[in-house]
Order: sequence, then C-alpha cells, then structure tokens
Amino acid sequence: MGEALQGLKRTIMCGEVRESNIGESITVMGWVQRKRNLGGLEFVDLRDRTGILQVVFGDEINSEAFNKAGAVRPEYCIAVTGEVVKREAPNNNIPTGMVELKAKYIKILSESETPPIYIKENLDAAENIRLKYRYLDLRRPDMQNIFKIRHRATKAVRDYLDNNGFLEVETPILTKSTPEGARDYLVPSRNYPGMFYALPQSPQLFKQLLMVSGFDKYFQIAKCFRDEDLRANRQPEFTQIDLEMSFVEADDVMALNEGLIAHVFKEVLGVEVKLPIKRMTFKEGMEKYGSDKPDLRFGMEITDLTEVVKFAEFKVFADAIANNGSVRALNLKGGASMGRKDIDRLGEFVKTFKAKGLAWIQLKENEVKSPIAKFLKEDELKNIINTMNAEDGDLILIVADKNSVVFQSLGQLRLELAKKFDLIKDKNEFNFTWITEFPLFEYDEEEGRYFAAHHPFTMPMDEDIEFLTSEPGRVRAKAYDLVLNGEELGGGSIRIHDTKLQEKMFEALGFTTESAWEKFGFLLEAFKFGPPPHGGLAFGLDRMIMFLAGTDNIKDVITFPKNQNAFCYLTEAPNVVDEKQLTELGIATVKNEK
Amino acid sequence: MGEALQGLKRTIMCGEVRESNIGESITVMGWVQRKRNLGGLEFVDLRDRTGILQVVFGDEINSEAFNKAGAVRPEYCIAVTGEVVKREAPNNNIPTGMVELKAKYIKILSESETPPIYIKENLDAAENIRLKYRYLDLRRPDMQNIFKIRHRATKAVRDYLDNNGFLEVETPILTKSTPEGARDYLVPSRNYPGMFYALPQSPQLFKQLLMVSGFDKYFQIAKCFRDEDLRANRQPEFTQIDLEMSFVEADDVMALNEGLIAHVFKEVLGVEVKLPIKRMTFKEGMEKYGSDKPDLRFGMEITDLTEVVKFAEFKVFADAIANNGSVRALNLKGGASMGRKDIDRLGEFVKTFKAKGLAWIQLKENEVKSPIAKFLKEDELKNIINTMNAEDGDLILIVADKNSVVFQSLGQLRLELAKKFDLIKDKNEFNFTWITEFPLFEYDEEEGRYFAAHHPFTMPMDEDIEFLTSEPGRVRAKAYDLVLNGEELGGGSIRIHDTKLQEKMFEALGFTTESAWEKFGFLLEAFKFGPPPHGGLAFGLDRMIMFLAGTDNIKDVITFPKNQNAFCYLTEAPNVVDEKQLTELGIATVKNEK
Repeated sequence: MGEALQGLKRTIMCGEVRESNIGESITVMGWVQRKRNLGGLEFVDLRDRTGILQVVFGDEINSEAFNKAGAVRPEYCIAVTGEVVKREAPNNNIPTGMVELKAKYIKILSESETPPIYIKENLDAAENIRLKYRYLDLRRPDMQNIFKIRHRATKAVRDYLDNNGFLEVETPILTKSTPEGARDYLVPSRNYPGMFYALPQSPQLFKQLLMVSGFDKYFQIAKCFRDEDLRANRQPEFTQIDLEMSFVEADDVMALNEGLIAHVFKEVLGVEVKLPIKRMTFKEGMEKYGSDKPDLRFGMEITDLTEVVKFAEFKVFADAIANNGSVRALNLKGGASMGRKDIDRLGEFVKTFKAKGLAWIQLKENEVKSPIAKFLKEDELKNIINTMNAEDGDLILIVADKNSVVFQSLGQLRLELAKKFDLIKDKNEFNFTWITEFPLFEYDEEEGRYFAAHHPFTMPMDEDIEFLTSEPGRVRAKAYDLVLNGEELGGGSIRIHDTKLQEKMFEALGFTTESAWEKFGFLLEAFKFGPPPHGGLAFGLDRMIMFLAGTDNIKDVITFPKNQNAFCYLTEAPNVVDEKQLTELGIATVKNEK
Repeated sequence: MGEALQGLKRTIMCGEVRESNIGESITVMGWVQRKRNLGGLEFVDLRDRTGILQVVFGDEINSEAFNKAGAVRPEYCIAVTGEVVKREAPNNNIPTGMVELKAKYIKILSESETPPIYIKENLDAAENIRLKYRYLDLRRPDMQNIFKIRHRATKAVRDYLDNNGFLEVETPILTKSTPEGARDYLVPSRNYPGMFYALPQSPQLFKQLLMVSGFDKYFQIAKCFRDEDLRANRQPEFTQIDLEMSFVEADDVMALNEGLIAHVFKEVLGVEVKLPIKRMTFKEGMEKYGSDKPDLRFGMEITDLTEVVKFAEFKVFADAIANNGSVRALNLKGGASMGRKDIDRLGEFVKTFKAKGLAWIQLKENEVKSPIAKFLKEDELKNIINTMNAEDGDLILIVADKNSVVFQSLGQLRLELAKKFDLIKDKNEFNFTWITEFPLFEYDEEEGRYFAAHHPFTMPMDEDIEFLTSEPGRVRAKAYDLVLNGEELGGGSIRIHDTKLQEKMFEALGFTTESAWEKFGFLLEAFKFGPPPHGGLAFGLDRMIMFLAGTDNIKDVITFPKNQNAFCYLTEAPNVVDEKQLTELGIATVKNEK
C-alpha cells in the first residue's frame, strides 16, 4: 500500500527540529525507527536522512492520530503533522533531544514487512544479505554518512580544480581494447559483428590526446573497469579522480595535487594537511621501509648490516652477499620479551615472502641470545648490536637474501610487528609522503621480459634516457605516487611527448613497431603534431573515501557493489540474455571445457 | 622531437597579457597559429586555451631566438620568454591586441607536420577527417569554447543541486539487462560464462532504490547507453543530468528543476529565465501545435474546424469526422502569395506524415480561391474563414484525418512553414514550457499492445487509476517534460511506490506476474519495505549543451564522438580482439547470415 501525498507538504527535516521551533506546527516525513507504548502514549522515533525526531501520539492529543499510530511498525514510511513541544525528559545524545512532536495528524505513506536486516549502526549481518537488501543496508545512518562524505569530497575536488583552471571533460566508455595492463571488459558490436569495444581501464590515452588538443588542464571523476580476479578491496568498476596538465614538470603536478588533497581533507574532515608533503625516493622507501608505499606513522626502519657482516663466515650471510644480495634487519624495541614460539612464528611469516629464514638476536637481561651467535665473531655480533642501536630488552630480526626478498620480507614484517605491538600511536594521524624516482620498468622473471612499472607512456628521467634499451633496469621514471598511511592514494607521471621516444619505449617493452602502431597508432600519430610537454595523476576515489570515512571495506563506499566474483546480489547481474540479443551481436556462448 | 621543459616555467597564459603587463618579462607556451616575416622581423601568433598573443622575433632583439624562430612552422609547440611591449599597430579584434611580446628566448617543445585540417573557427572539413584527427579538431577555439561551456554548465548544475540538499551518488555501469526500452549493450562475464552484464540505459531503477534507502535527494551526471540505430543527433553513449526526490509531488520536482535551469542559463550565458515556466497539458500541445514539444517562439496555432464543417458534404471531411477524426487547419498569414507549385509541395510534405492530402483556401486580392470551394456551401466557406481569423493575403491549410495524423502532419507543417517563412523572429530567444498530463500508455498498432509512454514506473494520475486495466488509453500520467524551442530538454514523473500498483502496471503492459518479478523483482521486493513517495527528472546534458553553445550537431559537444554506425574514426573502435579473450569469456563470434 503506497499513498500519494495529495498536497501534504513536508516543512522541516526530522534531524533539524530544535528548541527554537517550539510552538510551531510542522510536518515531518520519514521512517519509523522504533515505537513503544509508555503510560498510554505511543512514542515513535521518526528517522530521515538528517536524524531522528521523537513523535508522541496520545488519545488526548489527537485520538484519530493516536489510533492510527497504533498500527505502525518499524520501517513504515509515514508523515506526521503536529506541534513542537519541549521534552520532559531530554535526550542529550541526539541533536533533537530537547524537543518532541505532539502528533495531531498521521498519514501512512507505505507499510513495511519486517526487514531482513536491522536498520542500525555497526550492523553485523552476513554480507550477502546486506548486499541483496542493499536498499535497506543503505538506510543505516553510518552508511548514509559515508555517501554524504563521498558527495562532499567530490564536490571539494571539483571546486578546487575549477578554481585552478581545470576543465572537467568526459571521455568515452565504449572504446578500444588495449593490451599491457589488466584484462578488458568487452562489449560486442552489433554494427560490426565479430568486433568489440572495450570499457576503459583508465582515460589515460584520451587525457593525453586532450593535452595534444591544447585543453591545458583536464580533469574527470571517471569510471574505470578491470576484469580481474578480485582481490580484497577491488571492484570490477571503480572511480578515479583523473587529471592531466600541459607545460608542467613533476614538481608542478605534485604541488597542485598537494593543494587538492589538503583542500579535500580540510573540507570533509576539518583536518589540516601540512604542506609541502614530504618526499622520498623509491630507493629510500625500499631501503628504509621495504616498501614503495611505506607507512610512516611509526619508525622501526630497516638497517643495512651488509658492510658489518661482509667478512662473517656465517654461510647464509656470505651467500646472500656473494649473490649481490644483502643482510638487513629490524630492531624491535622491547621485543626481547617475546617467547621462542612467537619468534618462530615471525620466521614462518617472512617465509611467505620467500625469505629462507629469520635470524634473531635477543638482548635480554644483559645477555645476548641468538641461534646465529655461534657463527659470528664476538666483534661482529657487537658491531651488529651497535649498528642497530640495540639496547637491553630489544630484539634484532635479520634477513639475508637477494635484495627484493630482503625488502619485501622485512617490509611486511615491519607492518606485522606494528599491528602486533600496536606501534601506531595516533590512530587519527594522516601521514602523507610522495614516493619519487620509480624504476621505469619491472622485470618479470616468469615471462622473461620487462614490463612498464607505471604504464608505457611514462617519461624516463632525463639522465637515464641513454640506458633505455641497453640497461632498462636502471632507468628511473618521472613518476610519483602519493602514499597515505601505507596505502597508495594516487600516482602519476610526466608523459612522453615524442613519437620517437614513445616508439623506443614500446620497443623496450617488446613491441614491434608494427604492433605498437596497430595498438597505439592514434597516440603516436597525434605526437606528430606539436604535442606539449604534459603530465598528470590519478587518485583512487574509492580508497580516498575509505580514508575519509574511516572504513577498510571498499564495499562500504560504493552504493551497489559486487562480490568477489563480480556478482551483484541485488540485481543478480550478470544474468542470461535472450538468444535474439546474441544473434544480433553475431556471437554465441560456448561451453567452457573447465 | 619532444623537448622537456627542464625548469622553464610558464608565467602567464597567452590570452591574458594586457597593457598592464608592459615592461614585464614573461614566459608563454603554446602553438604557432601563423608566422609571417615583415620588415626583417618574424611575427608569430602564439595560441593557447585562452587566446592569441603576438610574438615578435628580431635579429636586434635577440639574434639567437630570431634564428631559431625561423625554423618554426604552424602548430609547432613552443615556449617563448621576452618582454611585453606596447604594439605599434594595435589589433582591436583580440583582447591582447594592444601589446606584443619581444622574444628573447625560444624553446621548441615539439615540432609539427602539416596538419591535415586547419586549426581555425567554423571549419568546413569532411566529418570523418575531423573525427580521425579529433585532437586537432579540438584545437579550434570554437570547439574549445564548447567544452568550456560544458564544464561551466555541469559545475553550475552541481553547485545548484548541492545548495539544495542533493547528494551526488554514483550507480553501477555493469548491471542487469532489462527489457522494455531500447536495446542494451551487453558485457560478457568471465566468472559466469554464458551470462552478461548490460550497460544502463539510465540509472532509473537505482535512483528509485536510493529513494527507498532514504537518500531523500539524489542526483548524478550519468553516462547512459543505448544500442540503437543512430538517428541524427544520437550517440551510443550519452550523458544525463539525473535526479530524484522523496516526499514530493509533481509541482515540487518542476519547481526545483526550473530553478536549476534558470541557474545554469544565468551562469553560462547570463540569460534570465523567467520563472515560473509556463505549463501546457499534453492535450493542449497536441491540439494547438500538433506536438508534445511545441516550439512557442512563433504562433500559428492549429484551429479545429470539425464543428464548422460537420454537416459539409465534402467526402474527405465527412469521412474523417465519421471515423472519430477531425478537420483542422493552419492560417499562414501572408501565405496567399505562394504559387500553386509551392502549395503542392506542402501537400507532398504532409503526405510523409500519412495525411491523405492538404486542402487549402487562398484569400488573394479579395478573392477566395480553393480547389475544395466547390464542395462547400458558401456559409461553410465563410465560417471557415471567420474561424481561422483569415484576412486578405492569408492561406488556410487544412488536414482531415484521424486525429493522430492530423496532429502530426499539421504540427510538422507548422514547423516547416516557420523555417520557410522565417517566422522565428528572435533567434536568441529561449522559450521554455512544461508539458504535463501525458498519456500513461501508447498503443502500438503493429504489436497490438500498449507500451509505457514514459517508462513502466510512472505513477498514473489519481483520478485515472481506476481505468488502468479497463481503459488504458485514457489514463494520464503524473509525468512532465521540459520543452525548449521545440525540443525536449528533459522529462520525468512521479513514480509508483506500491508493489501492487506496480504489478498492475506490468500487467497492463502485458507482463505475467512471473516475468515481471524475474526482470524487476528487486524493485518490487524493495517496495515491500516502506518506500517513500518519490519522483524525479532527467535532462539530456548533451542537448542542453547544444542549446547553450548554439550548435545543432551533437558531435560538437562530445569530445570523442562516434559516427552513425557507432564507429570511432580516431581509435578505430570497435575492433577485433584476441581469440584468447573470447575463450575466457565463453563466447565465440558467429558468421551472420545476412
């Protein structure tokens, strides 16, 4: 049963009624949060987007309304007209708690069955039920608050960029499939049977073309698509704050984006981000934190012990060093209290990152305990302890291996220990850093070739260009990531704006000239006509909202998210379609062998 | 060749340099619009997004810069440093025309081949060339101006709706295929081979679910997709300003949207839209203008002659009236000067809209000439002339047929005559009107059933609900379109918020309960849990920008549009993809028989 309003008008929102409204006749509309009968009166907590207002029905206030109110149940949608009065027993927990509404008229706008999930904060229902009844899940005030934050954040982004001369420009969703990147979602074409559009993984090529067009400063809050097996906190469609600027260098792009981030955090949370944001090279990030997205809310940096133990006879150290690897360690202050079993567990932990083992030195009650002590000379042991600045009560944790393994295992161990020992003191801290001078390429051992670490349009650093084909591994990129509390918030680069250099880049990535032109010919062609120097950046909006809203679940910041298999419990998409539709597209489904 | 900036910084945009900058040293960057050698000096018109600045190179100003400038050609991208000086021969046609830049340094940032299209206003190149080299086409100042307008318009939309309590919310692009509407674009699923997502034709269902969730006021500037054979000014992907409100009636939605439109036209064009915007029922629109989107910039209303000629013995009139049709006419003031051939051409014109013919009465030099005069009594002829308010020099054009044919043919004829005789006097006028009380259903004679005129979620008018299944043809909807200068700018309705009524609606549309639940079950289910009364509207953003920018080609307002076959000349999408991609999706292409 759904009733039309027939001229009835809402005059104020539930959450906005205050003592200043006492004596006024108002009409509110919303949902019944709960109803209780007390002393012959019916008390209804009425909820809308702005909050809750207590409504009281009584036989002596208005007997028709009172009788009608008897029938309402939670989540009924109702309209109530009445008089605002001072509340006898104020509720200081809600902004409307000083007043209540004496109901003189009620209209039931629609009824509700018993909802399958409770409409309350911090709900702990099964995820698939929450997603199936997402429209009820979204009634919860904490969910609505997230989408208010999302709205305010995107508004702040647009205001800031508009004020800074950027034009918001839409680029196509139906576009061309390109390799080098994630798997594309495809869209069969009806006009050209057997051919396909692809949904964009990002507007990268289009925004570069807009720079060639002289748009100068572009941005877009853009939907992007990747058909990947979903890791936690990934969704098949996600949103990027995407921007690009002409006639700039890396410093210009970084400065602009610092300003943007500071504006958003100020507008949404009232938090002042201290500018300029500090910077760290990729090399420093790896050496000190074993990560290109270091969490800087706590210290415990990695220390290089290679020099200290380079003559040690301990085979594990010697082998690592001989193979161009290194010996590095963390000092866990106060960690000496850990039991043997717990330390062994840390050893298991680093093995998941391919480390062969974890050596340790315990400084406990002025004694040095270590399973590797016997392999080390006394001064070597002393040197390690000195280099690590270790004192009584500390635990030194050492990995010796090739560098990539040392960095990853100690970097992950550092984060694990921070969690275990609660090393992050200020949970409300937002610790930003830029990471710069990324390697241009990453070597894939399985495929035996180099891949673009960022993407194939990234400009190498001027001083490294000469090594592009001879020593790709040492070429650094004009690329920069903005890292917040150990997560990548966004990243970008200065782009190549030269056909020859772009071709050389594709060559380094194993493309033939022909295949590069086949896939990216329109960009290479565009670069023949006076492309400007340009660069940009993209932020993951969903992740930014997660930070602003204080949630670690990406599904919380997307209105209608999909599950790990890219399935929507609400609409049951994907689903079967009519054969006729497929025939028109010139495709057929085939039974998969698996 | 693309050069990096290496620390060189732009200090001002080309179009912003003024007399107040005289004496300053500035650096500008942009494209060479043209270069000419005059009196031993090189004059370069340098262009960026903001305009053009004249740069002068001379051997005596700086001989190195002068020599380098000799090599530049149109569309080279360059940076120039120099001193702003007063221009000897001012150019009053451009804002920078009082000054010029004496160049002391030039850096060629990239070279350009001869562009295949000219970079100038009002270009008349072949469309496929413009689309293939779209990045050059977009360099033209008039194209850039359109995208500045588009940016300002969407900014104005967002500011206004934000100020009015709306939340901008994103809804999914990968969703479920639904029938009843246009053809969906499909996206094969890799996780569920044989199943498909569909790209949304609009966010209709999601925005209604957001109302069920209590979001209260939603908007989105949303990409929508329809796989239709493209008529002129349609694109496979297009953009909607989409909004929805809870606890409202039609008047509330219309008032809000009038305010929105007025704000946008004021912000972008400085035009004051007079509010409230006038309203007209669908019935009045059809009877007076033969259209549900009448162009009100000129009069020449249709007049009903049925009563006047109801006893006439003229068979064409009598038959039309006997078959529940009508006899209606236009009076073309001053049209009596038309020759017989031209009038015959109008007859051919109305035949394309299924009219059997066009009767006419010419009042010329105080004589009445008409091929049908012989079939009419003298007083019938006189009555027609009186009813039409016709005077000497006028031409009366009459169609007799069933009403739908009469309305369409006279409505189209009215527009045709307006064009031919230049009846729209003020080309800058924006003449808005609301059309209300649309029929809920349209009868499709071919399929022999009713279709939803708007969409199946539209609320019938309260007083017509009783006829929903008995007499669908007479049921009017709580629907409204905003019409501007004869084009539909947007449309919306109050929605059904009742499971039973929604089911009844689907029944009237020929769905079984089962098939309705299969397709729209999640909406019907949602309505069980206290849905609020709600309604909304969607504007076609692309069309709105066409009005604001004064262009009648939709491709002008989309950065990278597709052609009539949904093909992109620039990227050559759609295109073939690897077999491997199709195998992963569990689909194969099949040869089409046609």
